[in-house]
Amino acid sequence: MMKIVLIRHGQSVWNLENRFTGWTDVDLSDNGLEEARQAGMILKQNGFSFDAAYTSVLKRAIRTLWIVLHEMDLMWIPVYKSWCLNERHYGALQGLNKDDTAKKYGEDQVHQWRRSADIRPPALEKSDPRYEASHPKYKALKEGQFPLTESLEDTERRVLKYWNEAIAPAIRKDQKLMISAHGNTIRALVQYLDNIPSNGIVNLNIPTGVPLVYELDENLKPVRHYYLGMEGELEPGVIPHHF
Amino acid sequence: MMKIVLIRHGQSVWNLENRFTGWTDVDLSDNGLEEARQAGMILKQNGFSFDAAYTSVLKRAIRTLWIVLHEMDLMWIPVYKSWCLNERHYGALQGLNKDDTAKKYGEDQVHQWRRSADIRPPALEKSDPRYEASHPKYKALKEGQFPLTESLEDTERRVLKYWNEAIAPAIRKDQKLMISAHGNTIRALVQYLDNIPSNGIVNLNIPTGVPLVYELDENLKPVRHYYLGMEGELEPGVIPHHF
Repeated sequence: MMKIVLIRHGQSVWNLENRFTGWTDVDLSDNGLEEARQAGMILKQNGFSFDAAYTSVLKRAIRTLWIVLHEMDLMWIPVYKSWCLNERHYGALQGLNKDDTAKKYGEDQVHQWRRSADIRPPALEKSDPRYEASHPKYKALKEGQFPLTESLEDTERRVLKYWNEAIAPAIRKDQKLMISAHGNTIRALVQYLDNIPSNGIVNLNIPTGVPLVYELDENLKPVRHYYLGMEGELEPGVIPHHF
Repeated sequence: MMKIVLIRHGQSVWNLENRFTGWTDVDLSDNGLEEARQAGMILKQNGFSFDAAYTSVLKRAIRTLWIVLHEMDLMWIPVYKSWCLNERHYGALQGLNKDDTAKKYGEDQVHQWRRSADIRPPALEKSDPRYEASHPKYKALKEGQFPLTESLEDTERRVLKYWNEAIAPAIRKDQKLMISAHGNTIRALVQYLDNIPSNGIVNLNIPTGVPLVYELDENLKPVRHYYLGMEGELEPGVIPHHF
């Protein structure tokens, strides 16, 4: 029986301010720091340990991981950081307030941008300061690979490529792994692992800072999954009552 | 012109308590946390940046690095952790108070253990709880490779092996690197880079939490070195007045 633990970063400053974040590198809020601490403590109390961890190149996911590793006395394990685990790129919506955007474009339009599998939000212009293709953090991306915007399916594609090339091979080598990432990247993994059609998952909210444990068989098919420290298993589409 | 920045971790709880630490995994003191913050700020103010960082598997060095990377907004860079950068293993002295040990064995004996190149402190027994060969952190070590004690030369050997196999090749690829490590491992690197005989360096104290910058030519020979934020260059054997 193999296990992998997924965690969405704790609440960020922009989660709190209700802004579209995407690849903007905002930090955790005080509440987010506390969520990360709780996640680390509950993993430790439940006897979890890890051989390695994967995260994005965004500090809200990295800091969540660092806090968890501190709490678990696992600061020494290898940590692999990849842009492929970054949150969905939100194009020109990044930084905008979600309510303001709904007022301007209408609720339906914003819902489509947020929840349709294949619709992309308005793209960034390359002259936009939010277009960070030249940041050293992204030098591994080839010319044209830095997104101007992404649909949920665009995000899923890069996440699953990374899963297949980096993470799944490590699980098959019996490595106990943890992934600290983002709402849309965790959801992409849930959708893939549980083989859920895109329209079956659009309303699944991944709670921040709660370890999501997948037990996998030898083909990496899920036997069961559950949130650690929350009652019962979470089914797709069910938003836990305290989130 | 290539540059590498070495840093000895900030003050640890056992530095403060004047105990032999070695591979004991003690954390930074409050003062050590502050030293790390200062180091990060001064590196940033001086325009330094890094492509990757190397550290030991001991949390005082890892935490120093994490704080520096936080201050420099470089949390996203790859970090490589290796036992080869661990502090010198201090054998059966680990955990003992340095003054008590001097009273028991005599100042001369303790000075020999601390400063002789080839004399090893008393070895641990394999039954000793401080013998951690079975800790998952050390599973990369082959049978018999986990030390029971180390002379300074033993430490130097593994540090220089790691330098030659992992760090020097990365510098040659024009990577800007930082190494967060320990008093004896940094000293081993200084001795190697500056081609100092062992007896020329025994009294060189590496200050905690001060970035030590080496500028290297194309053969990785030092052109000059200096402590960042301290006046003048530090010569071997000279202890800076405020340490």
